[in-house]
Amino acid sequence: MTVQTKKQYEELNTKTAVSYLINLGLIKTDEETTVAEIGDGNLNYVFHIISQTTGRSFIIKQALPYAKVVGESWPLTLDRARIEASALKEAAKVVPELVPKVFHLDPDLALTVMEDLSHLTILRAGLIAGNQYPLVAEHIGKYLAHTLFTTSTFGINPQAAKKLAVTYSNPELCKITEDLVFTDPYFNCETNNFEEHLTPRVHELWQDKELKKEVAKLKHLFLTKSETLIHGDLHTGSIFVSETETKVIDPEFSFYGPFGFDIGAFLANLIMNLIAQEGHQQDSEQKEDLQNYLLDTIEKTWDIFTSEFKKLWLAKSIEPFSELEGYVEEVLTDIWQDALGFTGCKMIRRMIGLAHVLDVDSIESAEIRLRVQTSIINLGRKLILERKQIGGVLELVSTVEGAYS
Amino acid sequence: MTVQTKKQYEELNTKTAVSYLINLGLIKTDEETTVAEIGDGNLNYVFHIISQTTGRSFIIKQALPYAKVVGESWPLTLDRARIEASALKEAAKVVPELVPKVFHLDPDLALTVMEDLSHLTILRAGLIAGNQYPLVAEHIGKYLAHTLFTTSTFGINPQAAKKLAVTYSNPELCKITEDLVFTDPYFNCETNNFEEHLTPRVHELWQDKELKKEVAKLKHLFLTKSETLIHGDLHTGSIFVSETETKVIDPEFSFYGPFGFDIGAFLANLIMNLIAQEGHQQDSEQKEDLQNYLLDTIEKTWDIFTSEFKKLWLAKSIEPFSELEGYVEEVLTDIWQDALGFTGCKMIRRMIGLAHVLDVDSIESAEIRLRVQTSIINLGRKLILERKQIGGVLELVSTVEGAYS
Repeated sequence: MTVQTKKQYEELNTKTAVSYLINLGLIKTDEETTVAEIGDGNLNYVFHIISQTTGRSFIIKQALPYAKVVGESWPLTLDRARIEASALKEAAKVVPELVPKVFHLDPDLALTVMEDLSHLTILRAGLIAGNQYPLVAEHIGKYLAHTLFTTSTFGINPQAAKKLAVTYSNPELCKITEDLVFTDPYFNCETNNFEEHLTPRVHELWQDKELKKEVAKLKHLFLTKSETLIHGDLHTGSIFVSETETKVIDPEFSFYGPFGFDIGAFLANLIMNLIAQEGHQQDSEQKEDLQNYLLDTIEKTWDIFTSEFKKLWLAKSIEPFSELEGYVEEVLTDIWQDALGFTGCKMIRRMIGLAHVLDVDSIESAEIRLRVQTSIINLGRKLILERKQIGGVLELVSTVEGAYS
Repeated sequence: MTVQTKKQYEELNTKTAVSYLINLGLIKTDEETTVAEIGDGNLNYVFHIISQTTGRSFIIKQALPYAKVVGESWPLTLDRARIEASALKEAAKVVPELVPKVFHLDPDLALTVMEDLSHLTILRAGLIAGNQYPLVAEHIGKYLAHTLFTTSTFGINPQAAKKLAVTYSNPELCKITEDLVFTDPYFNCETNNFEEHLTPRVHELWQDKELKKEVAKLKHLFLTKSETLIHGDLHTGSIFVSETETKVIDPEFSFYGPFGFDIGAFLANLIMNLIAQEGHQQDSEQKEDLQNYLLDTIEKTWDIFTSEFKKLWLAKSIEPFSELEGYVEEVLTDIWQDALGFTGCKMIRRMIGLAHVLDVDSIESAEIRLRVQTSIINLGRKLILERKQIGGVLELVSTVEGAYS
């Protein structure tokens, strides 16, 4: 006989957020605290709580039972809080320095108490502001290699992987990606959201059968290629940085998916920022410097990813076939081709689909914006169609250079 | 608050099997019954119960908490009874005429009460005896198309597919296939089981890096390509036939796997029987006739599968991209290439690995047996290595012909 009791879900407020930490023993009743809700209110509450007495601070992130986007509201599973906190803990097993500490998960209230990272900057904002983060490539390359290898059938036995895949089954959030990344932008859908001036290019794209067939295949991979526990939404808005630190946050879209998906998301967002610099940097020398930094970051991320992946493969693979000469290289080629395809999909959807990137939308000049948007769509298309021909990261770098220079 | 009660598992015997049916109301207390346990006792009990009073008969299949193979015994999940009965019911939604009726599932006792099919013959036995079943290709082609299409993300929405994938998560039985089909035969493993005279060929194979790398990739597909609910063990011993009927049984290995796996299993077992006819048919005309029938069955199975699959695609696909010209053909090409690879793996493992096929083992002449075994291994290897070059089923047919003639 199993008896389960479940607390009733209720939304926290600034008062109950503090009481929650007191109940957990993380702060004491007599400490003086300041608290602010700093979330965007669309999907989650984010409470930032500081004890003025001890100087310690915490984040409470609480999932809301709905998603609000452009005025619409639809129900969304609270289970994503469990998924997010569990994925952070899973990552902390291998790269504890690259994710926030999780102090507590409350699945009934759909909330997680975690490390306060407000001393860091969101990578997207930092890049838009023209900053450079010298360690981000190394950190993200390492994050990708270690998280992706470890939960794959190369890193753990397939039975354990299959059990994890059940734990991380995440159909509702997968559906968001399925629709907004892989479907809607290629059809005349209500969710699409593009500027008037892009209409002719978008209409072309809806007729582009060659492209659509390749997107269909990439969508099928997203839906069925259950290789490893992925972050699922690794754009530059999911990464906190400073000169010395990098922290990956928000893995609520985690599920067992293709190796190449997180890599593609990260590369896509670097590339979009790079092309958008056209609209942010007045000084051409500064612009070139930033763009070179971004190209370098793309190159280094992939290089670090592959070298770390190969190290793990040699040291830790539990797959008897992994000793075969050339096998890891073929696995990496497959990952690379998928990653390029996903990069292209992520780029196109940010120009046409529901969710945009500030890197592009914040460009004031409509003329430059159109040029940037068109370059991103065209490059995205090229990466999707030529993903099996672009033989390595240097070829990607020169393809990207060709798209804006 | 959830309260669950669970019955204690206990093995049935011929007495309690009858009482079980009485309790279900399927037979009445005063009916005269005969009962026999007809399972092989390695994995399951199979009780065959006939009411002499009404003439009705039933099968009770009960999973045993262990597997016995060549004297070894290891624990094996009872959950496979639930998986098997559920998969039969899932198939019955689309091809009720091609699976046994399930009257009752008892997950606690790990047993299923189902239709008695003892008027039919196991296909493997029928083929070894030299019989031909004119409808089996059509039936199995249809079974494959309908079961595989319907639970894929083309047939149901991906969210429903993801939920089914959790329901059918089957790590323990997948491990058996992973080890016995995709790993052990390629290494000097204790589970291997091959005749002395094959030793030189097997040693060559263990050194065959080209082959092993391709097997490694096919293994990775088996482990990660979660496309649709597959039977998981569709050899000719899992199919009951007569001149007019075909019934697929025993889907206890079901899980979300690659489209091509069941097709490969079926083709492999037809091909092995075909090559083994060398050792069964004395009369060369009769042999040729049988082999032509088998070649024809291979061809027709694939043709029916593709034509049914395309019909379903046109009529029922829920995937917006499925309207794209040429997309279904590319999906079928991918299925074909995987199927050929799995065909090869299934052939090799039956010669070298733990579980053999009677088609070959029952050949009396050691000389012919060696020739047949070697042909099967060589053809298996060829199919694995050339799976992307063998462009269609006619090319497969001529490749198979080349292997024995």
